[in-house]
Amino acid sequence: MKKKIILLGATGSVGVQALDVIAAHPDQFELVGFAFGKNIEKAREIMQDFSPKVVVSAEASSQIALAESFPDVEIHVGNEGLIKLAKIEDYDILLNAIVGSVGLPPTIEAIKLGRDIALANKETLVVAGYTIMAEAARTGSKILPVDSEHAAIFQVLQGVQKSDVRSLTITASGGSFRDKTREELLDVTLDDALAHPNWTMGAKITLDSATMVNKGLEVIEAHHLFGVPYDDIHVVLHRESVVHSMVTLQDGAVLAQLGATDMREPIQYALSYPKHLTMHHETPFDLTEIGALHFEKMDLVRFPMLDLAYRVGKLGGGYPAVYNAANEVANQAFQDGKITFLEIEQLITRAVFEHMEFDGQTLNQILASDKRTRQKVSQWVEDLIQEKGK
Amino acid sequence: MKKKIILLGATGSVGVQALDVIAAHPDQFELVGFAFGKNIEKAREIMQDFSPKVVVSAEASSQIALAESFPDVEIHVGNEGLIKLAKIEDYDILLNAIVGSVGLPPTIEAIKLGRDIALANKETLVVAGYTIMAEAARTGSKILPVDSEHAAIFQVLQGVQKSDVRSLTITASGGSFRDKTREELLDVTLDDALAHPNWTMGAKITLDSATMVNKGLEVIEAHHLFGVPYDDIHVVLHRESVVHSMVTLQDGAVLAQLGATDMREPIQYALSYPKHLTMHHETPFDLTEIGALHFEKMDLVRFPMLDLAYRVGKLGGGYPAVYNAANEVANQAFQDGKITFLEIEQLITRAVFEHMEFDGQTLNQILASDKRTRQKVSQWVEDLIQEKGK
Repeated sequence: MKKKIILLGATGSVGVQALDVIAAHPDQFELVGFAFGKNIEKAREIMQDFSPKVVVSAEASSQIALAESFPDVEIHVGNEGLIKLAKIEDYDILLNAIVGSVGLPPTIEAIKLGRDIALANKETLVVAGYTIMAEAARTGSKILPVDSEHAAIFQVLQGVQKSDVRSLTITASGGSFRDKTREELLDVTLDDALAHPNWTMGAKITLDSATMVNKGLEVIEAHHLFGVPYDDIHVVLHRESVVHSMVTLQDGAVLAQLGATDMREPIQYALSYPKHLTMHHETPFDLTEIGALHFEKMDLVRFPMLDLAYRVGKLGGGYPAVYNAANEVANQAFQDGKITFLEIEQLITRAVFEHMEFDGQTLNQILASDKRTRQKVSQWVEDLIQEKGK
Repeated sequence: MKKKIILLGATGSVGVQALDVIAAHPDQFELVGFAFGKNIEKAREIMQDFSPKVVVSAEASSQIALAESFPDVEIHVGNEGLIKLAKIEDYDILLNAIVGSVGLPPTIEAIKLGRDIALANKETLVVAGYTIMAEAARTGSKILPVDSEHAAIFQVLQGVQKSDVRSLTITASGGSFRDKTREELLDVTLDDALAHPNWTMGAKITLDSATMVNKGLEVIEAHHLFGVPYDDIHVVLHRESVVHSMVTLQDGAVLAQLGATDMREPIQYALSYPKHLTMHHETPFDLTEIGALHFEKMDLVRFPMLDLAYRVGKLGGGYPAVYNAANEVANQAFQDGKITFLEIEQLITRAVFEHMEFDGQTLNQILASDKRTRQKVSQWVEDLIQEKGK
């Protein structure tokens, strides 16, 4: 039987690769609905190619235009549209490839309905990890990671008893600035930041790799997905991005998943789980061609955002949400040319240090912290622009 | 409940490490019987430390001496003794760490009784792979590999569906002569051969690593253990012996097991399967300390015994047994200073090429080929000595 799939973020980097996977296995997968941001031309193509029943656009103007061209398709708009899409009757799996914490509400709706979640949106677990995992356990919804690192860990854990796991080791390519000193980071540009050495990804995550915030978010995500304490989650610098991540067992044996740097593999496995289907136009992979794999310790002084991620993760409550929200605003501000690269770090650090809370935050309190942080950091960005304008 | 263990080859390299594992987990394991070769002093120690109920010695003189010192222990001798040991009533798992095809008959007896087999004796599967696997399937006996390569594959396959496996990749350290040309092999000595770069093992297997016969036997063993065609079993040169072996799945994802070069890990996992128990005096392992892992293609011209192993494996029938028997005799002859290193290869090649058989060999026919090969190759060794004496 075909798996019926909803895809959030269909025109983004992960979304496009997910569509390639779905198209390659018409006997296995069917796209029944999708959501996209602003790229209406790409959305039209997807509607023609996949004939989904429901589509959600971020902008009302797109909704009207698409409704004219596709009168038989149900078309919604915005965050409310996302919720409606997540609540449609007949689907098996929601692939959340939206960037940022806007992906959280529809994911929670899908989990409430007991649907499986293929999760490329790491912000979802960073902001609301405890809620998500508890709710998924209650409804039987499976959370299938799409991040290559978490997909690797998930794959090797399939035959392992949870009590046999000693620690996780997440590999980090080091991002585009891995060979720069902190001094050299003073005047790096957006173009420099977006030249990732190994992976082809969207701008937000490529920039997050350069700041190492991405790895920080992954540590927090891994904590929630696999229920492993922060002190047992390690990060190593692995320049080749060939070993996607590892698990150390109680006897010292290490299980690793490796392969080509092709995001379609984790996407496809999340959709086809628990099977490994053949890969359409597979990226060739030969360890003897690569020749050597290197592993180095992560320098937490060089990469303070990774250090800070461990801190906010251990603090829990709204702290990870604040870290993430500050990063989302600062990342965008750097992309918009409003702040310098190192100011991203400074804004995140300030937001975390200014955040105060009491124990036992509810999801609503966390979301309020998220919102407040976005407002504060946006204001700080404006202040920085003003200051520099003087 | 404790697992009751019988250990064949208790005073050898794997045997001693197995005893270390058993002693480290007195709440998990109990040694109820063991067999040893000639080292009676070590056997006495084991009897004192572990109080087994049944002991088998290779030599009648040891039987008499031990019977005097341990009147309450049942003591048998020789190949018949091994069969009696394998047939005792109350045990869970037989760890076969005997070197050579002498380990085959007691293993078959244990499988007939439905006992689990922890198999360090690769000759068992090389000689009688089809019989062993079919019989184990019939009685429900689990065959748990102890070779580090097969243990690695076995571990990563735990959560994988058989139809999802595309190929296996066995790693080879290259042995003590990996950096020598074939010309340089003309005058290598036994001491040179026994200086293995990575692993501490017995003399026979260390020499087999130098000739690459060991990797050839492992390819045949893997074919039987995992039911994978020979063309889908690859060998790569991996100097560090850190990645113990790998499995490639249908989507191109590679699962690998890695870790310290400590044989106690696969031994312990085979005994504790499916759990990964903590390791006593664990060998430290840190990829960032090791720094780099290297992978190279295997050169089948440089290592013709690996090439020959694929040929005999594909031919099937008695061919793998002939390859193995010729090697056992030639390996010992080199250890005894009777032949040169390259004459090992020559004797094995000649034995395989002279072997003729018709289709559908029974186990008895295979064992007859094994015996005939030993006689022939022993004679060739004598001929070589005579020739050189002229």
